Amino acid sequence: MSCPADKHHFAHPFDDDHLKEECGVFGVVGVSDAANFVALGLHALQHRGQEAGGIVAHDPEKGFNSAHRFGYVRDNFTKSSLMETLPGDVAIGHVRYSTAGSKAAVIRDIQPFFGEFSMGGCAVAHNGNLTNAEALRRELIERGAIFQSSSDSECIIHLMARSIQRKHADRIADALRRVEGAFSVVAMTRTKLIGVRDPLGVRPLVLGRIGDKGYVLSSETCALDIIGAEFVREIDPGEMVVIQDGHIESSRPFGPSTGRFCIFEHVYFSRPDSIIGGRSVYETRRAIGVELAREAPVDADLVCPVPDSGTPAAIGYSQESGIPFALGITRNQYMGRTFIEPTEQIRNMGVRLKLNVNKSLIRGKRVILVDDSVVRGTTSRKIKDMILDAGAKEVHFRIASPPTAWPCFYGVDTPNRDKLLAAQMTEEEMRQWVGVDSLKFISLDGLYRAVGEAEGRNNACPQYCDACFSGEYPITPSDQLEKGFEMKAAE
Amino acid sequence: MSCPADKHHFAHPFDDDHLKEECGVFGVVGVSDAANFVALGLHALQHRGQEAGGIVAHDPEKGFNSAHRFGYVRDNFTKSSLMETLPGDVAIGHVRYSTAGSKAAVIRDIQPFFGEFSMGGCAVAHNGNLTNAEALRRELIERGAIFQSSSDSECIIHLMARSIQRKHADRIADALRRVEGAFSVVAMTRTKLIGVRDPLGVRPLVLGRIGDKGYVLSSETCALDIIGAEFVREIDPGEMVVIQDGHIESSRPFGPSTGRFCIFEHVYFSRPDSIIGGRSVYETRRAIGVELAREAPVDADLVCPVPDSGTPAAIGYSQESGIPFALGITRNQYMGRTFIEPTEQIRNMGVRLKLNVNKSLIRGKRVILVDDSVVRGTTSRKIKDMILDAGAKEVHFRIASPPTAWPCFYGVDTPNRDKLLAAQMTEEEMRQWVGVDSLKFISLDGLYRAVGEAEGRNNACPQYCDACFSGEYPITPSDQLEKGFEMKAAE
Amino acid sequence: MSCPADKHHFAHPFDDDHLKEECGVFGVVGVSDAANFVALGLHALQHRGQEAGGIVAHDPEKGFNSAHRFGYVRDNFTKSSLMETLPGDVAIGHVRYSTAGSKAAVIRDIQPFFGEFSMGGCAVAHNGNLTNAEALRRELIERGAIFQSSSDSECIIHLMARSIQRKHADRIADALRRVEGAFSVVAMTRTKLIGVRDPLGVRPLVLGRIGDKGYVLSSETCALDIIGAEFVREIDPGEMVVIQDGHIESSRPFGPSTGRFCIFEHVYFSRPDSIIGGRSVYETRRAIGVELAREAPVDADLVCPVPDSGTPAAIGYSQESGIPFALGITRNQYMGRTFIEPTEQIRNMGVRLKLNVNKSLIRGKRVILVDDSVVRGTTSRKIKDMILDAGAKEVHFRIASPPTAWPCFYGVDTPNRDKLLAAQMTEEEMRQWVGVDSLKFISLDGLYRAVGEAEGRNNACPQYCDACFSGEYPITPSDQLEKGFEMKAAE
Amino acid sequence: MSCPADKHHFAHPFDDDHLKEECGVFGVVGVSDAANFVALGLHALQHRGQEAGGIVAHDPEKGFNSAHRFGYVRDNFTKSSLMETLPGDVAIGHVRYSTAGSKAAVIRDIQPFFGEFSMGGCAVAHNGNLTNAEALRRELIERGAIFQSSSDSECIIHLMARSIQRKHADRIADALRRVEGAFSVVAMTRTKLIGVRDPLGVRPLVLGRIGDKGYVLSSETCALDIIGAEFVREIDPGEMVVIQDGHIESSRPFGPSTGRFCIFEHVYFSRPDSIIGGRSVYETRRAIGVELAREAPVDADLVCPVPDSGTPAAIGYSQESGIPFALGITRNQYMGRTFIEPTEQIRNMGVRLKLNVNKSLIRGKRVILVDDSVVRGTTSRKIKDMILDAGAKEVHFRIASPPTAWPCFYGVDTPNRDKLLAAQMTEEEMRQWVGVDSLKFISLDGLYRAVGEAEGRNNACPQYCDACFSGEYPITPSDQLEKGFEMKAAE
Repeated sequence: MSCPADKHHFAHPFDDDHLKEECGVFGVVGVSDAANFVALGLHALQHRGQEAGGIVAHDPEKGFNSAHRFGYVRDNFTKSSLMETLPGDVAIGHVRYSTAGSKAAVIRDIQPFFGEFSMGGCAVAHNGNLTNAEALRRELIERGAIFQSSSDSECIIHLMARSIQRKHADRIADALRRVEGAFSVVAMTRTKLIGVRDPLGVRPLVLGRIGDKGYVLSSETCALDIIGAEFVREIDPGEMVVIQDGHIESSRPFGPSTGRFCIFEHVYFSRPDSIIGGRSVYETRRAIGVELAREAPVDADLVCPVPDSGTPAAIGYSQESGIPFALGITRNQYMGRTFIEPTEQIRNMGVRLKLNVNKSLIRGKRVILVDDSVVRGTTSRKIKDMILDAGAKEVHFRIASPPTAWPCFYGVDTPNRDKLLAAQMTEEEMRQWVGVDSLKFISLDGLYRAVGEAEGRNNACPQYCDACFSGEYPITPSDQLEKGFEMKAAE
Repeated sequence: MSCPADKHHFAHPFDDDHLKEECGVFGVVGVSDAANFVALGLHALQHRGQEAGGIVAHDPEKGFNSAHRFGYVRDNFTKSSLMETLPGDVAIGHVRYSTAGSKAAVIRDIQPFFGEFSMGGCAVAHNGNLTNAEALRRELIERGAIFQSSSDSECIIHLMARSIQRKHADRIADALRRVEGAFSVVAMTRTKLIGVRDPLGVRPLVLGRIGDKGYVLSSETCALDIIGAEFVREIDPGEMVVIQDGHIESSRPFGPSTGRFCIFEHVYFSRPDSIIGGRSVYETRRAIGVELAREAPVDADLVCPVPDSGTPAAIGYSQESGIPFALGITRNQYMGRTFIEPTEQIRNMGVRLKLNVNKSLIRGKRVILVDDSVVRGTTSRKIKDMILDAGAKEVHFRIASPPTAWPCFYGVDTPNRDKLLAAQMTEEEMRQWVGVDSLKFISLDGLYRAVGEAEGRNNACPQYCDACFSGEYPITPSDQLEKGFEMKAAE
Repeated sequence: MSCPADKHHFAHPFDDDHLKEECGVFGVVGVSDAANFVALGLHALQHRGQEAGGIVAHDPEKGFNSAHRFGYVRDNFTKSSLMETLPGDVAIGHVRYSTAGSKAAVIRDIQPFFGEFSMGGCAVAHNGNLTNAEALRRELIERGAIFQSSSDSECIIHLMARSIQRKHADRIADALRRVEGAFSVVAMTRTKLIGVRDPLGVRPLVLGRIGDKGYVLSSETCALDIIGAEFVREIDPGEMVVIQDGHIESSRPFGPSTGRFCIFEHVYFSRPDSIIGGRSVYETRRAIGVELAREAPVDADLVCPVPDSGTPAAIGYSQESGIPFALGITRNQYMGRTFIEPTEQIRNMGVRLKLNVNKSLIRGKRVILVDDSVVRGTTSRKIKDMILDAGAKEVHFRIASPPTAWPCFYGVDTPNRDKLLAAQMTEEEMRQWVGVDSLKFISLDGLYRAVGEAEGRNNACPQYCDACFSGEYPITPSDQLEKGFEMKAAE
Repeated sequence: MSCPADKHHFAHPFDDDHLKEECGVFGVVGVSDAANFVALGLHALQHRGQEAGGIVAHDPEKGFNSAHRFGYVRDNFTKSSLMETLPGDVAIGHVRYSTAGSKAAVIRDIQPFFGEFSMGGCAVAHNGNLTNAEALRRELIERGAIFQSSSDSECIIHLMARSIQRKHADRIADALRRVEGAFSVVAMTRTKLIGVRDPLGVRPLVLGRIGDKGYVLSSETCALDIIGAEFVREIDPGEMVVIQDGHIESSRPFGPSTGRFCIFEHVYFSRPDSIIGGRSVYETRRAIGVELAREAPVDADLVCPVPDSGTPAAIGYSQESGIPFALGITRNQYMGRTFIEPTEQIRNMGVRLKLNVNKSLIRGKRVILVDDSVVRGTTSRKIKDMILDAGAKEVHFRIASPPTAWPCFYGVDTPNRDKLLAAQMTEEEMRQWVGVDSLKFISLDGLYRAVGEAEGRNNACPQYCDACFSGEYPITPSDQLEKGFEMKAAE
């Protein structure tokens, strides 16, 4: 499902000026008290969705039980009074941001969604975004479906309900063949754990093993680590796995396909301690910094990360350039709700609540600031102000991703195109607007090299989905086109 | 006041295995909506006390109003419904841990304390610990005092109530001349903001300026930054300042004295973006890492900090040694309450909730781990386990402080001596117990050099309070001696 | 929907030993801030359902908004932060008990239910119980419906979704022609307020007028009074009204029918200040007492009501018999949650929390206790114990309804037949079991006379539904028969 | 302590137009889990104070523990998580209204108050009001006392702290000899339960027995009933009892005295099922109605109580006059917070939320309304409006107490004299202002007769405190005189 800005809980100092992933999914089968494992897994995936979380579990005696809550996993799914209501040895869960464009968040929008079918109940959790959800919803309503949420993901349940297949997994395949878009789906029946990735494998999904015959599906490997599960492999693009009694059955419901994984997962979404495509995300980000130092060197005294997401690239930049690495900006780890602004005497209070500059470190220095991306650019300006107020002599921005010029329709919350700085300005205009001595982005080829493609991007057949940088959308965004979105003209 | 472990809210991954500062104080006069400034200041000082916070404000029409709450500043003092009850242009506040030895935390123990005197009300907030509080309390009760809290700091109010002085400030001086111990006190009357530091200046207190005629007192400079106040100077050891109508009156109620500031504030307590003694705390910690690399070099592949407090020293160690700096351990930024342990399948779940190792980075490497201190040593063992599980070839611990072998009685929560690893073992025994290839602490002289004393420690007349390392207590801990504490034998 | 015992909030001292109505519905159209009127109306209907409440409102600009909450109306729908989210000039609401047999109450079971149809949204609130809901649900799931609740009432929405009618009201009629059972339904579209009663009119529904062109539908007239609305008339059995722009359109979607209103509404469910069939409920209950005094006189010193529901009948009994009326039992008006039982020293604590006897009034007296009904009989025994402990010489129970020997399947929570005292014992056995000097029930004919049927019950064609007394069910309880319920053998 | 209007929780429909008792005290010794008994006792005394409650308990191992909470006893002191923190076999408790004139209620004002003395801790709960509290407070502050609350009752603890007596009970006696006013005090030490009444015995205090050697002190007997304790006797005016190990020691610390119990306890404050002076309060109120019917007869069709407090007097009036008793006004038992007023279409919504008139009962009738008292008179007007709107032909008010023309300074919340209707108008003026056909109060002599003084009031030496009616204050209200209150001129 698509997942926009959350005003209440934010984890990164300037989440509101970041592309925002989206959702995390997690499921486990073959262990007792499965819901407790799911709670831990969701906690490890909290960076993928901080507004709300839900868990469904099944117990042979107590049947299906579920809990959906706003707020952090740690604040809800740690209470024994709640967890005791979720018994059983199969469970799935979901963390999410609020749905794009929704007025107020409502509990009915929190996944997993559940459907009671004649062959038994089935719960579904979805990471990604369906690009034809609006058309599907209209059609389903025509035919008698009662939608309970405003989520695109609910279409999957209703399509399942109308399938004539006799098995849950076949109904899921039926449903997913009808949808377009990006999806990593984790589902469960009374005894089975099911995982599916869309044909391009845009969003991640990995398989892990725990205990004698337990299996885990997770958005990222870091959530396997927290429960001590062993990483087995990634689910392939276009693959469906059905896990029961310690056995895994794999199939290809969409036929053969070649994956185009989201390259931004490497840049920002995934946790640095996760492993993607056999590579540590931390190491990839450090490599981006190395690449950036080669592409855009500058003479300076210090390399400072914009905390915390710019840190690995800043380390790489420092190592490649030989310029000392320093924590010039300190992040307040207790930030949270909005304070009342006392008077107009306080300028830029929003920034001060989150970040503070080590003045005595910065004063008189030429500073390279490494950040992961530039979206609206407003944050970059504020940080520049703070650094200059602290007495820096020069400020150079280095960005660990190419200019973000196109919105994502595959499960990431991005502003409209007219709000994206890089869609409105050239690099030089951006530099002037931010007000720094230099501003450089890594090149798209450089980014491909850093993620392990030695030859860079294969423009004929790109290895990744990089629509947010390139404007080349591998899946047609039908709902958006209907609403007037204009794609990049063919060149 | 003394401030021990809080089980509920912890900010650092292994707070329960750290010395724990204690309290933070903040006060402001001469600005409208003073309480809002105090809320911001306390938020910036939250690392000094996370269990509870309180604010007292005075308004000419509405009189004295106060609010005392458990939990984070951001969760309480951000609500307009609460803040509107705290009008006025003078206010003080306090953040704290729970009182040592107390059963359950009670709201009456939260500062500031308030007393109604014949010349008007006065509120007092105290950072530090009184070493003769128990004797004083007994004596005061004999003479008719009714104590409302179990806090040592309440003695100050009762001593003030019995003073025959006509002015609040004189009564505070009278009271503080009767107490022993470490104290940085911020107090307020209807129109005055008052600050006092004990003769040795063990705990910090700084003065800032805001707006035309506003003044601020704060434990650290980072809290001046958040409200845009200008740092003026530190309050001197043994100094009292009385601020009213934009004027500051300074006096020396305890006569002349030489300060012995707490050296551990440099090592761990203060925020890295604060300035102490004219030096950036971040820079001092980096210098400790440099010193440590000189004193205890070792051949290795990576220098990794134990997040987050070990980071500056690790940067320094890497820079001095030339061994690459890497974030080998990732901290979960959403940690919080205790999760329900699903089954025995999860080993060391407590650690996994907080930290995760970047396995692909660590595997096969010789790793130097830099941590700020070793208290009980239990955390060091767990981290060593994680690093070895991830496949490290060698593990070397480097500690940015000398062995902590003595409890602090001056406002820091330390375990009893028999729980301090360094009080029980030699360095080699500690290395074996932790189970690492090497374990080295910075020397006491090295630490003094890193904080700017080029000649190291002046053993005849030490420049800092370093009792936790040296066992040399500059203020006699009377209450403790009465309870059987044995001081180090004179050499 | 069916509505059983609520363990958490009970309003009558021995609610758990009473038949329990069930639900209340309320709707308003043609006034601004309609949801505030609904909140007031539901508050006045709180006695009909205390577990939860919900409101849906529609505003031309903000669309449909809803709020569903556990707990009392006064604790939820009085907050301006909530009520501001429910703008618009048409709104409906519902109060309920928890669904019979449900495990834990869930928010999804709270009405009104809402469906998005191709011609626009529609919300539905239902008082009553569908007797073929389980069969309908199975059939709907076969055809692709996704149920969100465990409520029988949700069938109505799904049947509407499958209707091929173009107008909401026609779809409602379509749906209700498919269901069996008792129902008073209030529904709303963007502009219309709709009300329907089942052909027998088992549950009440009245029409009121407010302001220039506002109309109200409510379960009882007492909820018209609270908002100052004028009582217009009852909705007829089998009638549908569609109200829009100040106009009412009436139709008979089920053809002609004769009503059989629930006689127990007179005895206990409705509020004494409501008017049913042109008669004050209070006056009817007093008339029952008069009738009871004629049918079952006894020589005694005092007539005491079992508070509060027995009071009007006790007044009638006293007036007819000439025996003084007295409040011999005092009810604790603050009762609520369960207290912790300190030790075994307290016997019958549950009763003491709710009631206390005026000992000095009762001592040595022959006491007539008037109660509204006997269900399990456990309460009657406890009250008898209290009265005897207080020193009464004789205790005579007089019951303002006939023996309750059959369960209700039309929207009232009744125990299984084997728990109903009157289904297991003769009147004399009941007297012995309760342990009183005499125990008498009003006769069925007497009850009919008291509600205004001068000739008593027309056994060939009874004027009311009295299945709980007579075992004659006017609507076949299909789901129950399928589960093995045995109806009374034809005589 | 004095106890004014509470806006949040009110139990009687027009509590805001009633004199408002005040506080309730309860203590128990010699039973295990004493705090649970206190919780039950306070619940039974909830009508005496609904804003807040507190309990202190002592356990030999866990020492003194306490809990103070806003809200109803049932909402706080029923949680096992809280009650488990209050172990031990001696405990006392207090329920209260907010302090007169206080801005916002604060937790520090909730009793019992606790003091740590050199001979051990002592907790004190006070029902009543000290008439020289302000002077005492000034004097104590001069001498170094730190007050924590704005309550007059805190003086008692500070006076105790300054006593040179060696035993707690002697210190209590010392302290109470220094205060003036009305007080029923319950106190506890580690092993003793102590009770004291002021020399006039203005406020009630009774002794009960439970189990083998347990004893109870309570404001009213109804709280003995709830825990199954046996009523032993009233504590005498001017008596102190010290209970330990099943033994009671009685003394007279103030010398001999004659009591003047508050006559308003009979009229309104006490619960109808309590026994005062050997008489049932219910029976006394019925007798007031009988007396009223004799003093002020009128020809009419119905006698209706203003619910619920007017009910017993209405029964008496009906019985004496032969005019039928009827519940013409129904009270909404779920009333609570303030609803949002939808529009100006609703007139008198405040009243409608609480009361509704049985229209069909009242229409065309001559109605006698019996109420317990008239304070401001605003309620009487609103009720008259409702009754006339319902179509009554005549309305006659009969009031079960004499005109309330003077404020109470002995623990009851009364408006200033200029707000008391009877202080401003003659009876005829009041009748016109209220707008009824007749308005009659019982005479002072009639009231004395009804409470059992066959000869009526002994004007030379009145048997009761009736200052609110007569203006004759048996204890000089010193603080009030100092503030300008003018007593009735001697005749």
